[in-house]
Amino acid sequence: MNGWLAIAGLGPGAPELVTPEVTATLAQATDLIGYAPYVARVPERAGLTRHGSDNREELDRASLALRLAADGKRVVIVSAGDPGVFAMAAAVFEAVDSGDPAWRDLDIRVLPGISAMFAAAARIGAPLGHDFCAINLSDNLKPWELIERRLRLAAQADFVIALYNPLSKARPWQLGHALNLLREELPETVPVVFASAVSDAREAIEIVTLGDAVAERADMRTLVLIGSSRTKLIARGNGRPFVYTPRSAGVLS
Amino acid sequence: MNGWLAIAGLGPGAPELVTPEVTATLAQATDLIGYAPYVARVPERAGLTRHGSDNREELDRASLALRLAADGKRVVIVSAGDPGVFAMAAAVFEAVDSGDPAWRDLDIRVLPGISAMFAAAARIGAPLGHDFCAINLSDNLKPWELIERRLRLAAQADFVIALYNPLSKARPWQLGHALNLLREELPETVPVVFASAVSDAREAIEIVTLGDAVAERADMRTLVLIGSSRTKLIARGNGRPFVYTPRSAGVLS
Repeated sequence: MNGWLAIAGLGPGAPELVTPEVTATLAQATDLIGYAPYVARVPERAGLTRHGSDNREELDRASLALRLAADGKRVVIVSAGDPGVFAMAAAVFEAVDSGDPAWRDLDIRVLPGISAMFAAAARIGAPLGHDFCAINLSDNLKPWELIERRLRLAAQADFVIALYNPLSKARPWQLGHALNLLREELPETVPVVFASAVSDAREAIEIVTLGDAVAERADMRTLVLIGSSRTKLIARGNGRPFVYTPRSAGVLS
Repeated sequence: MNGWLAIAGLGPGAPELVTPEVTATLAQATDLIGYAPYVARVPERAGLTRHGSDNREELDRASLALRLAADGKRVVIVSAGDPGVFAMAAAVFEAVDSGDPAWRDLDIRVLPGISAMFAAAARIGAPLGHDFCAINLSDNLKPWELIERRLRLAAQADFVIALYNPLSKARPWQLGHALNLLREELPETVPVVFASAVSDAREAIEIVTLGDAVAERADMRTLVLIGSSRTKLIARGNGRPFVYTPRSAGVLS
């Protein structure tokens, strides 16, 4: 009965962004659980049972992991990015909270990873250099009205805003509505970054202004960063501009 | 003239949370620059010149790094956590923006790391499982009134709030004011986490309620997490409770 459960972040995609802690924990696992494309990022080996699943089955996946750990297995749930940011860690603790009381005393660890917004930010400069927020644009688990309210307050606070899960086939209109709302609150000149598949072979990054931003540039693998009123571009002779948000802020407008 | 500059995140403290990308880049460096305690986290070796400095000299440090890279050196600036989050990356791009135009075309890369809020969150559960924001509580570079405005809007948005740089000898009262302001906006039962020196030998984590939170629990190495109205504790028989924020949110109050 030395079972345990680790919820591990694989980072944005590149192997060199996976922490040694995660790599070492995966080497000790008997069972690997997660959304199938993330499970596929972990090399196969003897003694490691793989449980891939659909992206929508988060609570089922969490319960399976907890049952296996309670049975003495060494279980790793893998998420992309950081498991605590719009990923599997919250689903596991929801399952613990509402499930078998014995699960509360299991050895459950969360292993942090490089979340999409930091990977994207690093690629383009330092857009998160000042205060910022992260909003999951999916309205699968919260009302759209709450998302609109948060976007408006975040813009009024002049946060840099990272939008996770901006778009999917089942949620085609939300990002467009969000951009329209933000155009009511922020200058049209604010930089907007569409960062897709950062650090893997399909990486694509576009920098536009809020005035020119169209939702169709995004897909399921895109992180959208909305600058604050102070976010700046530095033009370069040999490539994409740098994007950064200065550490200082002046007086209130 | 193959100089370059990398701004690298060392994570919260433990070597197993340093990415392989950062480790490989440090191995190629000729010059290492940073606040002295972070420089000290990188092992000495022949061929690596170390430039430790005071924590306040960020722009000087950035300019030195850019001059060295322009001279053909392979330079790494080290930050704790993620270099893009209230750390050296923004200072470097400020220096690029206002300095020698030739610096714009240098090979400058930002290497992400595990930021303090994710390390702290991972240690206690999944407090960042829903929308969240990060606010630097230092008023060295922005007016305190702006910080107050952001805290109030963030609480009204029901974000989980991560407070960086909550307190120092030169800024003794800010965290207390912030907690008082948040008590006006949020239920007193909201969980507050004081997480210090996460992942190193001096790690200390305390979980209290907003009603009971006192600023004196924090120091320079503390990350303070303020729960949203939905952040919950899961009591355990054998240790600290888990803290998590469910992915779902109900209708607006």
